[in-house]
Amino acid sequence: MVKVAVLGASGYTGGELLRILALHPNVEVTLATSREFVGRPIHYVHFNLRGYYKDLRFSRLALDALLKEAEVVFSALPHGVGMHIVASALEAGLKVIDLSADFRLKDPAVYKRWYGMEHPYPDLLQKAVYGLPELHREELRGAQLIASPGCNATASILALAPLVKQKLIDLEKIVVDVKAGSSEGGSEPSRGSHHPEREGAIRPYEAEGHRHSAEASQELSALAGEEVKVSLVPHAVSSVRGALASAHAWLVGGAGREDVTKAFVDMYSREPFVRFIFMAPPGYPDPKYVVGSNYVDVGAAVESSLSRVTAFAALDNLMKGAAGQAVQAFNISMGFDERTALRLIPLKPG
Amino acid sequence: MVKVAVLGASGYTGGELLRILALHPNVEVTLATSREFVGRPIHYVHFNLRGYYKDLRFSRLALDALLKEAEVVFSALPHGVGMHIVASALEAGLKVIDLSADFRLKDPAVYKRWYGMEHPYPDLLQKAVYGLPELHREELRGAQLIASPGCNATASILALAPLVKQKLIDLEKIVVDVKAGSSEGGSEPSRGSHHPEREGAIRPYEAEGHRHSAEASQELSALAGEEVKVSLVPHAVSSVRGALASAHAWLVGGAGREDVTKAFVDMYSREPFVRFIFMAPPGYPDPKYVVGSNYVDVGAAVESSLSRVTAFAALDNLMKGAAGQAVQAFNISMGFDERTALRLIPLKPG
Amino acid sequence: MVKVAVLGASGYTGGELLRILALHPNVEVTLATSREFVGRPIHYVHFNLRGYYKDLRFSRLALDALLKEAEVVFSALPHGVGMHIVASALEAGLKVIDLSADFRLKDPAVYKRWYGMEHPYPDLLQKAVYGLPELHREELRGAQLIASPGCNATASILALAPLVKQKLIDLEKIVVDVKAGSSEGGSEPSRGSHHPEREGAIRPYEAEGHRHSAEASQELSALAGEEVKVSLVPHAVSSVRGALASAHAWLVGGAGREDVTKAFVDMYSREPFVRFIFMAPPGYPDPKYVVGSNYVDVGAAVESSLSRVTAFAALDNLMKGAAGQAVQAFNISMGFDERTALRLIPLKPG
Amino acid sequence: MVKVAVLGASGYTGGELLRILALHPNVEVTLATSREFVGRPIHYVHFNLRGYYKDLRFSRLALDALLKEAEVVFSALPHGVGMHIVASALEAGLKVIDLSADFRLKDPAVYKRWYGMEHPYPDLLQKAVYGLPELHREELRGAQLIASPGCNATASILALAPLVKQKLIDLEKIVVDVKAGSSEGGSEPSRGSHHPEREGAIRPYEAEGHRHSAEASQELSALAGEEVKVSLVPHAVSSVRGALASAHAWLVGGAGREDVTKAFVDMYSREPFVRFIFMAPPGYPDPKYVVGSNYVDVGAAVESSLSRVTAFAALDNLMKGAAGQAVQAFNISMGFDERTALRLIPLKPG
Repeated sequence: MVKVAVLGASGYTGGELLRILALHPNVEVTLATSREFVGRPIHYVHFNLRGYYKDLRFSRLALDALLKEAEVVFSALPHGVGMHIVASALEAGLKVIDLSADFRLKDPAVYKRWYGMEHPYPDLLQKAVYGLPELHREELRGAQLIASPGCNATASILALAPLVKQKLIDLEKIVVDVKAGSSEGGSEPSRGSHHPEREGAIRPYEAEGHRHSAEASQELSALAGEEVKVSLVPHAVSSVRGALASAHAWLVGGAGREDVTKAFVDMYSREPFVRFIFMAPPGYPDPKYVVGSNYVDVGAAVESSLSRVTAFAALDNLMKGAAGQAVQAFNISMGFDERTALRLIPLKPG
Repeated sequence: MVKVAVLGASGYTGGELLRILALHPNVEVTLATSREFVGRPIHYVHFNLRGYYKDLRFSRLALDALLKEAEVVFSALPHGVGMHIVASALEAGLKVIDLSADFRLKDPAVYKRWYGMEHPYPDLLQKAVYGLPELHREELRGAQLIASPGCNATASILALAPLVKQKLIDLEKIVVDVKAGSSEGGSEPSRGSHHPEREGAIRPYEAEGHRHSAEASQELSALAGEEVKVSLVPHAVSSVRGALASAHAWLVGGAGREDVTKAFVDMYSREPFVRFIFMAPPGYPDPKYVVGSNYVDVGAAVESSLSRVTAFAALDNLMKGAAGQAVQAFNISMGFDERTALRLIPLKPG
Repeated sequence: MVKVAVLGASGYTGGELLRILALHPNVEVTLATSREFVGRPIHYVHFNLRGYYKDLRFSRLALDALLKEAEVVFSALPHGVGMHIVASALEAGLKVIDLSADFRLKDPAVYKRWYGMEHPYPDLLQKAVYGLPELHREELRGAQLIASPGCNATASILALAPLVKQKLIDLEKIVVDVKAGSSEGGSEPSRGSHHPEREGAIRPYEAEGHRHSAEASQELSALAGEEVKVSLVPHAVSSVRGALASAHAWLVGGAGREDVTKAFVDMYSREPFVRFIFMAPPGYPDPKYVVGSNYVDVGAAVESSLSRVTAFAALDNLMKGAAGQAVQAFNISMGFDERTALRLIPLKPG
Repeated sequence: MVKVAVLGASGYTGGELLRILALHPNVEVTLATSREFVGRPIHYVHFNLRGYYKDLRFSRLALDALLKEAEVVFSALPHGVGMHIVASALEAGLKVIDLSADFRLKDPAVYKRWYGMEHPYPDLLQKAVYGLPELHREELRGAQLIASPGCNATASILALAPLVKQKLIDLEKIVVDVKAGSSEGGSEPSRGSHHPEREGAIRPYEAEGHRHSAEASQELSALAGEEVKVSLVPHAVSSVRGALASAHAWLVGGAGREDVTKAFVDMYSREPFVRFIFMAPPGYPDPKYVVGSNYVDVGAAVESSLSRVTAFAALDNLMKGAAGQAVQAFNISMGFDERTALRLIPLKPG
């Protein structure tokens, strides 16, 4: 049994990690930290987990306890908060899966441009493996530091990767229109997340320079071998879980429907968590049918007369968009079957 | 591996059975019937199951195929539709878990009063075991015919059983106010279930003589050893899954909060799927935190000055209210651990 | 034009008052107070009002400005906050419609029991008219202090009044099961109102001694001429606006369906904002079809064999449950047609 | 009083017309047709209208009754169904506001391409005025046949018109990502609109060649004086009412944020129902805050470094997207104040 700590365990991503790890046959969660709920049982916050983790209570984040109790760290701390403890944990030889944005960008200059500060550990940016198994499975084996991707970035990259890899689209003019449920904003209440305001909303936000576009551009550019310009325009819609990326692009070189289909099949047919929706109801991906699971459903619409394509990716923002993907990467890095603890089938209706 | 047939497999309850049985280590689903989708792959209807049951397609309901392909039958056919095939399957020695109302009532006269027709197999009413493990676990061991309870009845009975058993309440004046999500109405579209009409609704229905009150009265009367009169008043609310029973009753004999608490603890503390919510957030049961699982969360509010109690039970109408409970009863009847394939943790947020 | 001030104008009830009064032909809103948004234009908070109240900005609450700018005061301040300023405004001769609970209870001892403090103005409790036009229309004419009822109390009283007035039910055993949308909790975000937690919830709250039961008992007892015991058990469901009261009671003296129907028709047939739902779809009241309007739809389900009745009342908690009813009472007290500015037809679908 | 007939009055658009016209001071509705509900009172279908139209019942569609009872016809019949009766009504001298797609396209060849049949009245295509007041106000004065725009087309055109008119964007590469509530699909239940399937969905549909793109291209090309290519990619999200168009385009000629802002202000500052959201919460248009009203809120996000703009338009699909706009056009054509009966303020929260 691997001893695992979950940092920032009282938020949604932390709770989702606990939900998955509760039934992981190779894992024992020995530490769950929370600033606000120190001393409370897990189900005091995560009502769904009543009956699980009976001997575990939230504890304060402390390096010595971490080093003593854990071999592997999942950090669901907010961006910027966990950098130093992650660095210390790595130095002490622990494995870290970091779910924040802290180690996702390779280039310190790019990090500074998007996050407004010098990165204190530029060497760790190099060391970190971007935790998207569909692009970096081999690098993940044995990795010590995994930077788990953002949810909107995951959806955007997985929708576009086949088209970018095969150079079927104009790499300069890509706009990803993302629609996301309310859990993507985390567990802290705010005016915008207040139910009377959020329910029924169709509300653009961070529509000018969304940070996840930096990740998406980095990964897609690496895949293309040249610069790919991607904009993300997210919208809050009134689901709780689930995000859909509709990646709008223009086909080049006479590419058509068959090329698009082939690109998806070639890239994903052996992926355990990617399902290509093609010629069957409901026609296109809908996150409603992956909620609770680690699946990402992908598909595409092609208007050949206009040389236009929209590539879709639908995922559960807390699973393939966060905790599920982190556990998948962890499994790979440990040499476990990557589906371990992730054989969760979505609900229908959900 | 037990060979299992699911009848009525394209509806919501059928789909939920398929979702659960997909990962049941002792089961192979060999037959899934549907009138409308004969020949279609399972995921043509159940989009969530894409990637599962790759070799199975919906087939027409036919007795010979059933007897040839299956040892155990889960029937999710509508009320009245499956009676004869169930009788034939039983005669041929198959085990049947029937999820309709056909075999739930013991007394043929009561059946006639509520369902408006003579029951063609009154002997089977006697043979059938009411599939509520919390009340009939011992009878379920080895049972050949299991009549799986209705969702509103399950919630009502489990909310009231401790109070009725301990005779803490007036058995003549009990009204259960049920609030239920839209999936309780099944998978067939109707004017009332049309999204624009159903979303945001708080709508009483079948408020004068709901059929599930017959089941609830039967089971609670048996528990009390005297007649218990229970009314159910259901309301459609805008969740998708989940039902809450708020059972309003009047305390007798000076009973107070401690008696109520003790009755719940005594009855349920060893039950694997009943969780008693007491002195911790969110205070009372909320089906939101059991969705997707086989749990039923129970609790109570007591107003001693008015000798009033409200007992609550929250469940997922397709799980503990239907397919989950059916699999739980199946597991018991087969001698498997009753939690097999049911270790599904609810989502939060869900 | 009557000069009107709205106190607590940035909350939901305040915003709803502004929405109604914007088109009131006899009213000019001269003052709108808010602690948090001083100096901001109205639409900074109430996005829906963009284009209205162009010359008005939120101001700090101050007695001198109030006395100078207003003849009539609508106070949507929280319970306990506005008492002194209301008393001062009354003393200066202004008319006050108070939407808090501060002046609803007649008996200072009852006030103390439910609100935990001595009432500083017991004489004003006597002076105040409970602003429910269906029970107090005559007293409202010319009234200087109107205590506008709580939303759950309004629904409970209007559902039960015909049955209580005609003594058709046991007055000792009445339980009102209320289901309410999220706007009932006001505009301040909280953990329970956070969209991911609130959407899909069916959650009992304040289930032991809800404060609105004091109002309901007071008003129904006065109507009966004897003590009526009413319990309220509210549940949060996932609508935004709308509340349904399902008042469960037991019929006495052989009363049946016809008596119930007659009681409703007798009491409400001439009421401009009460609609009795009888023998037509959707069968029973559903707040979905009154949202945005001042209507309250009422109806009843009768199970004669069990001597059981459930009386229903459906309203928009911010309209007939708060701001709409306050304007209705204001209109009566001023001698205007009571429907002025309230001819708002609900949406369908809404 | 103008005598008005509403054809197809039992659907959502028909019901919305009835809701608006109920309080129109210059209109008497003398006829409301429905195939399914002949003889039923209006509130049998439109529960919200209980108390209105007491003397009106649904009648069968018949030309003689129409010519006898009405001076003006609002046709909310489905596409293709009302063509002949509209032609006959026009011939008899009635004014027609047609809310279907039958008369929106000017070019019979374009009509045939998108709707798959020869148009039987090509001359009426020329005669019809496209009922978008913001583009055709002058032509609407006195118009006899008004072709009321589609909801997605209205949103797309109003979002893009300022940018197209000023030639700020590449007219060849425009994709409008539309998110729409469930009422857009009309009042007929279907598998996709069944609440358990529709709630929580984020589902692309008609993503390859949506018919409203023909209207949008026609109108925007006319405005530009050259061909504009617009694709619409609609998505079903889980609101009931409301649609948001996010029109993604690329800026040309060095255009930046100021040019975009100026284009919106220039075009819309005197429009009674267009509100430009700029530098104030909630930042961008959200249909939640126009629901129930005839407003369309517009705005834009600019990423100058990428020469990218997203123009937004948010409206209520049954109001500015259908019935409200039709009444606005009717008012203009009749010489009434165009805001008559449309002074409906949106709800917040709604």
